[in-house]
Amino acid sequence: MTNVKAYAAVSATSGLGPSTVERREPGAHDVAIDIEFCGLCHSDVHTIRSEWGQAKYPLVPGHEIVGVVSRVGDSVEGFTVGQRVGVGCMVDSCRECESCLEGLEQYCEAGNVGTYGAVDRRNGGVITQGGYSQSIVVDENYVVHIPEGMDPAAAAPLLCAGITTYSPLRYLDVQEGDKVGVIGLGGLGHMAVKIAKALGATVTVFTTSPSKSADAVALGADHVVISSDPEAMAAAKGSLNAIIDTVAAVHDINAYLRTLERDGALIQLGLPSEKMPPVEPGLLIRKRLAYGGSVIGGIAETQEMLDFCSEHGLLSDIEIVSATELDAAYERMIAGDVKYRFVLDVSTL
Amino acid sequence: MTNVKAYAAVSATSGLGPSTVERREPGAHDVAIDIEFCGLCHSDVHTIRSEWGQAKYPLVPGHEIVGVVSRVGDSVEGFTVGQRVGVGCMVDSCRECESCLEGLEQYCEAGNVGTYGAVDRRNGGVITQGGYSQSIVVDENYVVHIPEGMDPAAAAPLLCAGITTYSPLRYLDVQEGDKVGVIGLGGLGHMAVKIAKALGATVTVFTTSPSKSADAVALGADHVVISSDPEAMAAAKGSLNAIIDTVAAVHDINAYLRTLERDGALIQLGLPSEKMPPVEPGLLIRKRLAYGGSVIGGIAETQEMLDFCSEHGLLSDIEIVSATELDAAYERMIAGDVKYRFVLDVSTL
Repeated sequence: MTNVKAYAAVSATSGLGPSTVERREPGAHDVAIDIEFCGLCHSDVHTIRSEWGQAKYPLVPGHEIVGVVSRVGDSVEGFTVGQRVGVGCMVDSCRECESCLEGLEQYCEAGNVGTYGAVDRRNGGVITQGGYSQSIVVDENYVVHIPEGMDPAAAAPLLCAGITTYSPLRYLDVQEGDKVGVIGLGGLGHMAVKIAKALGATVTVFTTSPSKSADAVALGADHVVISSDPEAMAAAKGSLNAIIDTVAAVHDINAYLRTLERDGALIQLGLPSEKMPPVEPGLLIRKRLAYGGSVIGGIAETQEMLDFCSEHGLLSDIEIVSATELDAAYERMIAGDVKYRFVLDVSTL
Repeated sequence: MTNVKAYAAVSATSGLGPSTVERREPGAHDVAIDIEFCGLCHSDVHTIRSEWGQAKYPLVPGHEIVGVVSRVGDSVEGFTVGQRVGVGCMVDSCRECESCLEGLEQYCEAGNVGTYGAVDRRNGGVITQGGYSQSIVVDENYVVHIPEGMDPAAAAPLLCAGITTYSPLRYLDVQEGDKVGVIGLGGLGHMAVKIAKALGATVTVFTTSPSKSADAVALGADHVVISSDPEAMAAAKGSLNAIIDTVAAVHDINAYLRTLERDGALIQLGLPSEKMPPVEPGLLIRKRLAYGGSVIGGIAETQEMLDFCSEHGLLSDIEIVSATELDAAYERMIAGDVKYRFVLDVSTL
């Protein structure tokens, strides 16, 4: 066991403070990673505040982890000391179910093991602790390579915000000439715009704030539709093949469904805590639309996404914060006051 | 113009009574059809009662039409006098939009021209009149061949109930080994069971009435789940790839979504008149499910469906009624008291 510095919540209302976390000795298949950067995700806030169910405290959040390999177990084949690597939202899964065998570990039928706050079934049932810490030990099957030359801080959010948007865009087979809408321009939304553009799509950003129009265009959006303007929404009717919906607050998707062409799909990524307004089945029926969902992506697909982002020069737009700024960053994140992802500089712990 | 006998509604509350309808002289591309049988569809009831918007009276319903070609226009290439043919839910469309050019006339961007109660744009804007009549004149592009040897009365419901279920099953690429659920065991549901079985799927019927279990099995269902029994529904969790939802009444689809495996889809075919309960996005997200809709099928696909049904010996289970029994049949249809489709014997007009 190694004790390393971390920032942890000790209750739903404590915020984050200095702490330590125990990391296991690397087993035969494990990779030990000295963490450099860790992105701040909305999930971190929801989880440490017990908004998604009672959390187990103390809890170290963080699942957008980038660092450097410090040790490897005897049987590790894919990693060597000194390589820059990433860890995303999961550190294990059953490895036996159909989903795991297909490389879709995020849909593991036994449930994947989250990077923090989850029961680590294969490691004595300890509760996993995340990336707001100096190091982490992870089975190599759940570690990815950060491509050569990629900025480590700006790469960190790709491990969650990047793969969460890349996976549904690929699942929908978005390609050259497709017309993709993106609802919401936050951590996920800004990556959805970049990735959809890189896939060759024409991108329309839906936002409630006219003030975000210029930002959307700067990120690569071809069109911006102010979703609170009924005329603008009506003008967009039937103009899109696919919509990536990154909004986690309760919202009415019917107006967005109307902007889809025949056979279009709206994929919801965020999980509202309250009931959504009912979908109008007539909208689905009359244009053979699909309303779907998606969660992160598999490990192999995460590597594919990183390679894709490297090839196309895509990174997250970030603001680096130090450990003492975490609580303030959470408040700003909740207020939507970040372009577009905070990343913790782990050297400040 | 030819005046032929028909049964028409003259108001939302009149029910159906003897009437006549004018049929145009066949144009160069038209096929004139002596109607033998016409299926009774729930849409007929909703439309003549102005439940789906104000109908234009007098109105002759009926869009599951089978008959024999009596005349053909000079330029008709696909049909000759004496052939048995069918007409389904539409008699025209714009023929220019992407959907029409792809053979998906049901999604025509200008709106397809319904077989009854629609403005016939290419024929002087008259209101189309349906198949509860002795004859009909239809452009050959919207007429299909009834395969040799197929019972004409039992084939009639295939023109709506058949294609409405065949099209989504094919769109979802249902095949050997797939596990398909069917919600509701009426006109559409019983065809969904037969077609899914013929495609090689294992079929589960969901029904609220235990009394329908034996019927479902007789139709070919492998499993029957009583949807009002929470334990039975829980036992079916994650067991299906696709669900064809034929229920037009308001119902909660969340319990059915839970019976889908990863990447499964629930396709709703019926259009409730009231709002449906909200879908739980978490169900879609955690298993990458899709909730979609579908409406009838294209003309070429309708022919494909008829050929498929002929090849597999599939027909609708029907009860033949005479013209004077139409009002009573509607009442029984609304009460769900038919196995599984009424068909009007047009010789009784």
